Amino acid sequence: MAGKSERYAPLTVDSIGARLGEISAITARLGTDTSVWDAREVGDGNLNLVFIVKSPVGEVIVKQALPYVRLVGDSWPLPLKRAFFEYHALVRQAARDPGSVPEIYHFDEEQAIIVMQFFSPHVILRHKLMAGEKVDGLADALGNFLARTLFRGSDLSMDTSARKRDVALFVDSVELNDITETLVFSDPYFDAERNHHTPGLDGIVARLRADTDLKVEAHHMKAKFANNAETMLHGDFHAGSVMVTDNETKMIDPEFVLYGPMGFDVGMLLGNFWMAYFAQPGHGDDADYKEWILGVAADVWERFVAEFSHLWRTERTGILYEDAVFAGSPLASEQALGHRLAMIWEDSLGFAGVEMIRRTLSLAHIAENDMIEDEALRAACEARGLDLGRQLVVNRGRMGDMAQVNDLARQIAKGTSL
Amino acid sequence: MAGKSERYAPLTVDSIGARLGEISAITARLGTDTSVWDAREVGDGNLNLVFIVKSPVGEVIVKQALPYVRLVGDSWPLPLKRAFFEYHALVRQAARDPGSVPEIYHFDEEQAIIVMQFFSPHVILRHKLMAGEKVDGLADALGNFLARTLFRGSDLSMDTSARKRDVALFVDSVELNDITETLVFSDPYFDAERNHHTPGLDGIVARLRADTDLKVEAHHMKAKFANNAETMLHGDFHAGSVMVTDNETKMIDPEFVLYGPMGFDVGMLLGNFWMAYFAQPGHGDDADYKEWILGVAADVWERFVAEFSHLWRTERTGILYEDAVFAGSPLASEQALGHRLAMIWEDSLGFAGVEMIRRTLSLAHIAENDMIEDEALRAACEARGLDLGRQLVVNRGRMGDMAQVNDLARQIAKGTSL
Repeated sequence: MAGKSERYAPLTVDSIGARLGEISAITARLGTDTSVWDAREVGDGNLNLVFIVKSPVGEVIVKQALPYVRLVGDSWPLPLKRAFFEYHALVRQAARDPGSVPEIYHFDEEQAIIVMQFFSPHVILRHKLMAGEKVDGLADALGNFLARTLFRGSDLSMDTSARKRDVALFVDSVELNDITETLVFSDPYFDAERNHHTPGLDGIVARLRADTDLKVEAHHMKAKFANNAETMLHGDFHAGSVMVTDNETKMIDPEFVLYGPMGFDVGMLLGNFWMAYFAQPGHGDDADYKEWILGVAADVWERFVAEFSHLWRTERTGILYEDAVFAGSPLASEQALGHRLAMIWEDSLGFAGVEMIRRTLSLAHIAENDMIEDEALRAACEARGLDLGRQLVVNRGRMGDMAQVNDLARQIAKGTSL
Repeated sequence: MAGKSERYAPLTVDSIGARLGEISAITARLGTDTSVWDAREVGDGNLNLVFIVKSPVGEVIVKQALPYVRLVGDSWPLPLKRAFFEYHALVRQAARDPGSVPEIYHFDEEQAIIVMQFFSPHVILRHKLMAGEKVDGLADALGNFLARTLFRGSDLSMDTSARKRDVALFVDSVELNDITETLVFSDPYFDAERNHHTPGLDGIVARLRADTDLKVEAHHMKAKFANNAETMLHGDFHAGSVMVTDNETKMIDPEFVLYGPMGFDVGMLLGNFWMAYFAQPGHGDDADYKEWILGVAADVWERFVAEFSHLWRTERTGILYEDAVFAGSPLASEQALGHRLAMIWEDSLGFAGVEMIRRTLSLAHIAENDMIEDEALRAACEARGLDLGRQLVVNRGRMGDMAQVNDLARQIAKGTSL
């Protein structure tokens, strides 16, 4: 389905009962009496229709792609096929890290509809980060999800013919890849039409756009993103793609799924924690909570390393570093693991920096900054993110460990380079 | 065409006229009187049927895939679809470096037949290297072919949606990729069933198979080969895939085409020159000719760098390092070019080393060594290749330039580590 079928029609709160009321996988959750179904449109993302549909006996999420970018309108068309890619991503993530993503009840490719589990009373992680509320087990869930999905979607684990089929399947997602390639990796580095930034940042923005090293290194990261089809990525793994309660963590919205470098998902997530840290003066600015955020970043990486290493030692069934060569050489296997983790670390820092820069200079910003009404304060918070981001992109190959990066964040938080 | 059609039938010298005599693209070259066509089967490769078909008015090559590996027999099945991949590779190579590859007259997907230009009086480059015969313009043709095909098949040049379609097309070549992944990158490093080596090498082979650094680094190269879909590679670019006269150079046989890292084609070719250099004591052992071989390796790289840099500065129309970001920063563009060339250099050395090792320890060896009847001399020549190969794989990140590598080759040629 490259284009839109003539039978495609967007759902409305009023038509949902009539259109989905015959599907047994849905009536099994909501009952067959559609007159008591209650549908609410809650899509606060940039792209799709999202409905919560409740009945006295249950509730589901109904997500439908629109043939354009919702945030912008039909002047920016976007293929419905992204629902197909999201469906295939969710199926694979569920198999690779069971329980981490919503269960799928129904998928309709032609209508670009996914009906899935409603996580309640979960909220988007960003809201917690603005409210200064901690989440038990957050870092463990995130680190495990990253390690399991990135390892198990790669040639370290998969049958390589299955991996190659998946590369072919997901590489067809040209338009969504283009959004990332453009908005994340290119627009921030020149005066692109869709860019916007807080006025007080004019000086630092001009400096960054004239920064040769930054431009070159950011584009090396883009080349990795575009060409290094290492594993199936979530592709948009920021604090808006994570839903939490006080002690439960779930992952959603992998429609930007692609085969790409492991460090992309890890780095985007870490970058979002560092931005949330710098945004704290615009919210509670609680010293303990700020340290908690840095601790989550550190713990995500620590858990990722631990779980990735565990899978490396116990599930390395793919064509890379395979047993035939490495079984008799446990030291060689450990040496290779160390090198791979070092490469993922370096990539992750680079992608984290790229994410921090694009979230301040390009089209899509983060709520943690946008919600700061005091423009001068917002600019100061954002500038600190830009400072760290620039350092990470340019010096990613020479950052020792997480303690060093978090320390750099603390030093930067003390001042401003406006 | 995943499998074999029921209508597929291998050609024979006797059936060629009847089966191809109605195809106007062929009769335009050979005439319509098939009774005067003269077909000879000349396949000396490992995989396919190859016929030279001559008539009083012309000649063509008819290449047909067999449903198994010819060298091994039907115990090793191999999909006919490789003819489809070779056809698509040749079309793209012809567009990217016009005149470098045989013109295609006819392609029959179901019969896995390509009818194409016969290069005459060209011979396989390996024969020249054994005969001690120089080829004018060899390095220029090879360097230009590498630069043009690797640059123009990448996101540096192509429309990215076209590149992504090609990634999907070629990633389906699972079985041929598997041959490279296995025979080139894995078998040499353990006692695999299909391996064989010259008996005098037992000592050095045992050392290499116990060499942790070598194993780990060779597998880092395998990971790059398997996952880094940077550009369309020839995929089997050794001295048996090059046809030459005294002053003309043509490239053939890209059926192992895949999207992979640029350094793979460059490195495989360089490795073959270094092996041919070490094999000279088994042939003419002419000092001037040996230096000529090293000079060709140096000149291939120099021409590659010059042409790649030229294309970088004049044809960078893809999504990487794009004009929107780099047009106003010529220094940034040059900095990025320098980095990319340094990365290709490092990868090329690693792949060259991998190639030199697998051509001595794995299934497929090179004629330059196989033709040395004196087993002790052959072992000495091969051991020197292994010595250089190991150095290149393990130290590829710290080899300064081509002069340094060629000097290392000269030093190694003086001794032996048997």
